[in-house]
Parts: sequence; C-alpha cells; structure tokens
Amino acid sequence: MMQKRHATVQEVGMRDGLQSVSGIMPTHDKKRWIDAAYVAGVRYMEVASYVPAKLLPQMADADEVVAHALTYGDLTVTALVPNLKGAEKALAAGVHRIVAPISVSVAHSMANVRKTPADMVEEFRRIRELRDDMDKVGRTKLIAGLSTVFGCTLQGEVPLEDVQDIVLRVLDAGSDIVALADTTGHATPGQVDRFFDALIPQAQGKLTIAHFHDTRGMALPNTMIALQHGIHEFDASLAGLGGCPHAPGATGNVATEDLVFMLESLGYHTGIDVQQLLDARSIIQQALPQAVMYGSLAHAGLPKAYSKQSNIEKAVV
Amino acid sequence: MMQKRHATVQEVGMRDGLQSVSGIMPTHDKKRWIDAAYVAGVRYMEVASYVPAKLLPQMADADEVVAHALTYGDLTVTALVPNLKGAEKALAAGVHRIVAPISVSVAHSMANVRKTPADMVEEFRRIRELRDDMDKVGRTKLIAGLSTVFGCTLQGEVPLEDVQDIVLRVLDAGSDIVALADTTGHATPGQVDRFFDALIPQAQGKLTIAHFHDTRGMALPNTMIALQHGIHEFDASLAGLGGCPHAPGATGNVATEDLVFMLESLGYHTGIDVQQLLDARSIIQQALPQAVMYGSLAHAGLPKAYSKQSNIEKAVV
Repeated sequence: MMQKRHATVQEVGMRDGLQSVSGIMPTHDKKRWIDAAYVAGVRYMEVASYVPAKLLPQMADADEVVAHALTYGDLTVTALVPNLKGAEKALAAGVHRIVAPISVSVAHSMANVRKTPADMVEEFRRIRELRDDMDKVGRTKLIAGLSTVFGCTLQGEVPLEDVQDIVLRVLDAGSDIVALADTTGHATPGQVDRFFDALIPQAQGKLTIAHFHDTRGMALPNTMIALQHGIHEFDASLAGLGGCPHAPGATGNVATEDLVFMLESLGYHTGIDVQQLLDARSIIQQALPQAVMYGSLAHAGLPKAYSKQSNIEKAVV
Repeated sequence: MMQKRHATVQEVGMRDGLQSVSGIMPTHDKKRWIDAAYVAGVRYMEVASYVPAKLLPQMADADEVVAHALTYGDLTVTALVPNLKGAEKALAAGVHRIVAPISVSVAHSMANVRKTPADMVEEFRRIRELRDDMDKVGRTKLIAGLSTVFGCTLQGEVPLEDVQDIVLRVLDAGSDIVALADTTGHATPGQVDRFFDALIPQAQGKLTIAHFHDTRGMALPNTMIALQHGIHEFDASLAGLGGCPHAPGATGNVATEDLVFMLESLGYHTGIDVQQLLDARSIIQQALPQAVMYGSLAHAGLPKAYSKQSNIEKAVV
C-alpha cells in the first residue's frame, strides 16, 4: 500500500486574519478558536503578532494567547515579529517559531516599515543573534517570511532577481526556514512555477512554506504548483478571514477549509477534519458579527458523497 | 522557441448561465454579449437551448440568437438539445455542434427528464441518425454532454463504473465528442484525476471537453488536472452567471475571465483578452441588474504587473 504524503496547513487567521478586520476579537474567543482548530486536527498555528498595542490593539493580548496555545503539547506555535523588540517578547513567551516579515518590494517595505528590504534582513540577523543568545538550545526556529514576492500593489512587478537576492541574504543571516508570501494576491500558477524553479535550487532545502492569498482566485491552483515543487506547508485563514486590505470585497488569505478539502482530495494527509473546520466558523461569526467570511465550501457544504471520496491513497500532484 | 499550447474556452453563459437566472435577457442583449465575447477573442460559444418556450421562456429566441452567432464566419456555434425535436430545430438552424445532455446519475435523470440514462442514450442515437439524414455532409458534430458525472445532489456518489458504461454507450451511439460535466460542483481534483485515468483510454480520443462548476471552489484545480490528462476544451460562463441552482449563494459555472486568466498564466494560448472579458460583464449587469455576478478577478482587477506576466512561453501543466 502506498504511503499517503503529508501536507501541513498552518492556521494564521488569529494573526493575519484578525490583523485586517476592524473589530477586536476578545481573548476568550481567540482561545476558543485555537481550541476548535486543535480539535479539528490543526497542529500548526500562527496565533499572534508582537507589535506595539497602540499600533495594533487587536494583538495586545499576544502573551495570553500564546500561553494558551502552548498548553497543547503537540501544537507548533508561531508568532510574527516585525523587529528585535518583538522578537525578545516572543522568545520570552516561548513560541516554537518566529516569523519575521521581509517585504521584497522596495516600495512596500518603505511604506510599511520605512526600511529597505536589505535593512530588514539586517534586523532579521539581529533577531537570529538574539535567538542564539536567549535560546541556548535553539528550539525556536526563525522563519524569514518574504512578502510581496509575486507582485505588489504599489510597485507592480517584483523581479525574480530581487527575490533571489533576498533569499540569499536571509540564508546568510541564518534563517531556519524561508516562506514565500503572495501578500497582495498577484501570483499566478505560471509565475509560481517559474519562481520556485529558480528559488528552490538556491534555498538549501529551507524554502518549505507558501502563503497564498486568494484575491484573484488563484490560491488553490498556486498551491497545486507549489506541491509539484515539493512545498509541504501552507498558510491559511479560517473563513478566509481578513479579506484583502488592498481590494474591498476581494478575498485575502485562502480559506483553511477550502485548502484542506483540496489537499485531502489530492491524496495528501493533513490530519484535519473539514467538517469540524466548517463548524468552527461560528466562533468567528459570533465574536465578529461584522466581519465578512469567505470560503466556497461553506456556501455549498460538503458534497453528499464526501465521506466516500476521502479514502484516496494515491497522491496526485 | 517553444510553441505555446492552445486551450479552447467555450462561453456557455448565454445557455447555461441564463438558464439558471430568473430574469429574461432581451435578445438584443444576448447579441451584444455574443459580439463582445467575439471581440474579446472567444471563438466557441454555446448560445442557446432548443427546448419548448413554455418550459424555458429564456430560450424562446434560440433561432434568432443562433442566426446572429452564425454571422461570424470563424465562430463555432453550439446549441443544447434535450431531445429529437430540439435537434431537428438546431440542425435546421445550422449550428456547428449539438450537445445533448445525458445525466449519469439515475436519480437526476429521472427527476429531470423522466428517462433513465440508458434511455437518454437511445434518444441520442436517434439524434445521430437524424443528423446523418438531415446533414449529409456531417458538418454538425454531436457532443454527448455527460452530466452529474462527479456526484449528484440527489443520488450522492456517482460510481465511476456508471460513467464508464455511459461513455461506451454514447460512443456506440455515434458520438463525435464526449464532454464530462460536473453539474453540481461535486468534483475534486483527486477524483477528476481518477476518473480521467480510467475514462480517457476507453474514449477513443473523443473525450476532449470538461465542464466544471465552481460550487466548492474546485473548478480551477480541476481544470489543472484535466489539462494534465490532455483535455483542451473547457466550458465557462462570463461572471459565473447562473450561480448554483442547488445551493443558494454558491457559484455555478466557473467564471470565464478567471479561467482564461489561469490558462494564460500557465502558458496556454486561449486567444482571449481578459480585460475585454471583464469589460463585457457590464452587458450582463445592465440587462439583468438582479443577477448575482461571480468571479474573483473582477473583484480585485488584473494585477498591476499583468501585462509583463502574459508573455510566458512555456506550458507548465
């Protein structure tokens, strides 16, 4: 019997999703969401962002949310940090992984953090040095979260050469993992193929995560191309929470439930129960009644014959 | 230089899309839609259905719409016919292709046309005989449009064996082309792979069209799998018009503009200009202001860097 291949889906809604909605989700509901995702089988979550509370009140409870997530022994807990100060807090909180966003688009990087991408890499290097100092056993992994990799609403095209340059720099700075993010939903399957073709050989096995937005409906096709390149971890947000801050009405993060549904159909084992994910949407709906919820599967429900389809042994892509 | 591969996108909105909306689109607007699609580069359209006007008033102008479409010398014009009577009219009108729907789900077939799938194949055989009689040069091609192939809202699972049986029967009945339709949006990429694996070797090169609905967001992933199996013609509906009659709020036919956008990004030449398709949506909006319009690309617009991405020479899938 063929061994099913495994794909990891990281729930990032508590960070990326909540960051882009206006209402503040109470800490209690964030915990309920973590609980429900865990019960559904999610074992990777990016649960908070260590940014100044006055800039992002939504993340003021980062410590409490991280502490709750860490009560699950086999849950890999990730936090986003934009700088050294945030990294210090995240390391003190004991997260398993820190992701530091580095925008490859110069225009986006300057507008967001008033630093060039190269300067952000230097901040990333300092974060790695801090990690080495504070965390002697090196348990906390550092993810370089390269954003606006496939295009940018400000700059337009982001040349592949610029991405290659930043990948080499973050590897030199000591990144454990490299993630490519389509922050603005520009990526197309053909482009994803071209970029991974060029980047994987130079990434020393560390380019393992893709973060696709569904702004133009390409998140799932892009995921299929990434699978063909051996990428096996994908970010997603329950109910596609957050939308696209750059295009009102358009979707942002791919919906976790749609992604899991597709991966399972392709013969990948995610360990996640789609129906329980669909049920967990009610937590968002109750806590943030104004938030727009996305996701194709939720509108139509699971197919009538779903249970009979789910025992595919062969990985297709 | 590598030759770009070609993919055909057939616009079926004037038939499948309009069939599922409540308002009636005036004949004049149907003609404008055909004109706009033609100008955008669409060269295959399913423009009408020859059914009794009392059952489907939307299609009462089939003859006039077909006649208009036939004024374009290089446009392949298809009409749907549910029975011999409809086929007689379609043949008299001079369409290039007739598609006869045959539901593989027994429950769906009985509910829709009060005939078993096998009885529908016999009607198909009579249509082929009529075609042979009326159309001595055999110019009009007959498409067996197998529906509910991947699942059914009434029956649930549709066994692959049932599909195989109907494929063999329609080939025996003289089908020129076989199209597989995911009428109810049940298909998943893994299932599409499994079905095409089994069906293509037995279809004698005649299984060349796929018709995917986006009800659960899988139309584009399913298309990628179908491309891998050599399928090169796909049905789609501008703005995903029609929705899903079985699931309120869910999408039906995949949006033509999203499909073309993906195919072009994958290095397939469709001959269709995406921006002109996006512009053509206004015809639907004006003629049917109540109709829900779908499509991810329309919400976000083309990516800023789009023109620079479109000259990919390599077909990826």
